[in-house]
Amino acid sequence: MQVAVIGLGSMGMGAALSLLKAPGMQVAGVELREAGRAEFAAAGGTACAKGGEIPAGIEAVVVFTVNAQQASEALFGPNGAAPKLAPGAVLIVCVTQAPDDARGLAAQAAERGFLYVDAPVSGGSARARSGELTIMASGSKGAMAKARPVLDAIAVKVWDLGEEPGLGATMKVVHQLLAGVHIAVAAEAVALGIKSGIPAETVFEVVTNAAGNSWMFQNRVPHILAGDETPHSAVNIFVKDLGLVGDLARSVAFPAPLAALAHQLFVSAKAQGHGGIDDAFVIKAYQALAGFKLPKED
Amino acid sequence: MQVAVIGLGSMGMGAALSLLKAPGMQVAGVELREAGRAEFAAAGGTACAKGGEIPAGIEAVVVFTVNAQQASEALFGPNGAAPKLAPGAVLIVCVTQAPDDARGLAAQAAERGFLYVDAPVSGGSARARSGELTIMASGSKGAMAKARPVLDAIAVKVWDLGEEPGLGATMKVVHQLLAGVHIAVAAEAVALGIKSGIPAETVFEVVTNAAGNSWMFQNRVPHILAGDETPHSAVNIFVKDLGLVGDLARSVAFPAPLAALAHQLFVSAKAQGHGGIDDAFVIKAYQALAGFKLPKED
Repeated sequence: MQVAVIGLGSMGMGAALSLLKAPGMQVAGVELREAGRAEFAAAGGTACAKGGEIPAGIEAVVVFTVNAQQASEALFGPNGAAPKLAPGAVLIVCVTQAPDDARGLAAQAAERGFLYVDAPVSGGSARARSGELTIMASGSKGAMAKARPVLDAIAVKVWDLGEEPGLGATMKVVHQLLAGVHIAVAAEAVALGIKSGIPAETVFEVVTNAAGNSWMFQNRVPHILAGDETPHSAVNIFVKDLGLVGDLARSVAFPAPLAALAHQLFVSAKAQGHGGIDDAFVIKAYQALAGFKLPKED
Repeated sequence: MQVAVIGLGSMGMGAALSLLKAPGMQVAGVELREAGRAEFAAAGGTACAKGGEIPAGIEAVVVFTVNAQQASEALFGPNGAAPKLAPGAVLIVCVTQAPDDARGLAAQAAERGFLYVDAPVSGGSARARSGELTIMASGSKGAMAKARPVLDAIAVKVWDLGEEPGLGATMKVVHQLLAGVHIAVAAEAVALGIKSGIPAETVFEVVTNAAGNSWMFQNRVPHILAGDETPHSAVNIFVKDLGLVGDLARSVAFPAPLAALAHQLFVSAKAQGHGGIDDAFVIKAYQALAGFKLPKED
């Protein structure tokens, strides 16, 4: 099977490398950054700078761009991938995007005779590399069947949420509401502990063994403890994703006050110049509000 | 060892029954409600209606009242337990209370020659019954040593947070910040899913297998799915506990915006007459804001 992956960032690179390891897959990768292309070529993939440069006859294209606009450009823009796809190819769009954007891409695909699977992911970059993502998928039975070998190569769990494009995107946005608020409240609790005389390490140990734990608390607080700002997922991602939560919520007339407030905290961290560092450093918003030092800042 | 437990609610009853099962323990239980006394007596305990009615010579008293004021009354008020305690007895106070109140009780204990262990718990009523609580403890080495057989009978994990009374209470309040926000945001996400066309059951299944999960999401959302309002922990508990978070945060000059907002949502659920039902039904605040039906309400 001839497959292309568009966007070799931390998630897309992991998925592309997982596809390279799957039997019978020939994989092209599209990435603007030269370093990304070099890494992928060294692993045995065909590296391209533009969607239009992929080999002809691609049967499935997996999209890991940052947002819906980039996905649309890489697929259907000038020098996009669409002309290189085989008739009836399937587009598997893993971008976290607004449900309306997913439906728009699906309509553009249908006009050109392509199948479409709405396929946002959860799991982070480590699980992308090990082919163990979770995928929140929706799409027609035909599209899902055609996408199946690709999905199985990159994921351990594929939720089939229905035939309508946009359902996968909706589920992902609901998921990001929890993810974003959990990261922000992890920072709030660690900060309150520090201000109240409980070391951050103690808060981490006690909470991860008690009912106040969350997946994000357990995963992200160690970055704060270590002072490790490496952006496994950046503050900017949640500026975007909690924005999508607000858009979806408003579109269905639902006030989402906790998500809206968490959004403002990520915006504050970005405003202070921390948009590019790990999302756990939303705690910078609390530092600005309250004045305290993190464990590695003494 | 002669032990008394004051307050046989869902948590205190579980702890008292665990103590009854421990070898060499004689256990008295104090409870205003007749039904609670009857249950405890049937299990082999000595049931009393007032702290002053416990047998003389009690070496350790475990306090599970709803708040600090009730704890103070049951111990040191008229007809309180203090006169029945052996010299040098240890008070083990498991109440979620303000750190200042914990320090106040510790001072009252010291005046009378008693030891004091600050010992708020986590784990819920099921784990109280199985003797598997987590305890966030602080107290002098002597107090901790004297309390150890009791703590071991009711808990699988005892965190020793230091010698100063109030540290246990502080850690518990920080923990409740996470617990309360996690319950409220679980409701917010389930509600957004319902409004956006994703069934609550699907949101539950996907999230509990992904990075958006929390201990509270996994534990409480099933109550919403089942329409089970049985108050394992009631809305009123988080009206109180998130109030304690606000008090602590203000006392150390820390703004805790997510906790403050979650608090208002629990207050709204209480305002609508739902203070006595399970805390997952903070989702009633979202129903009032946005108008939608829960799974079992159709």
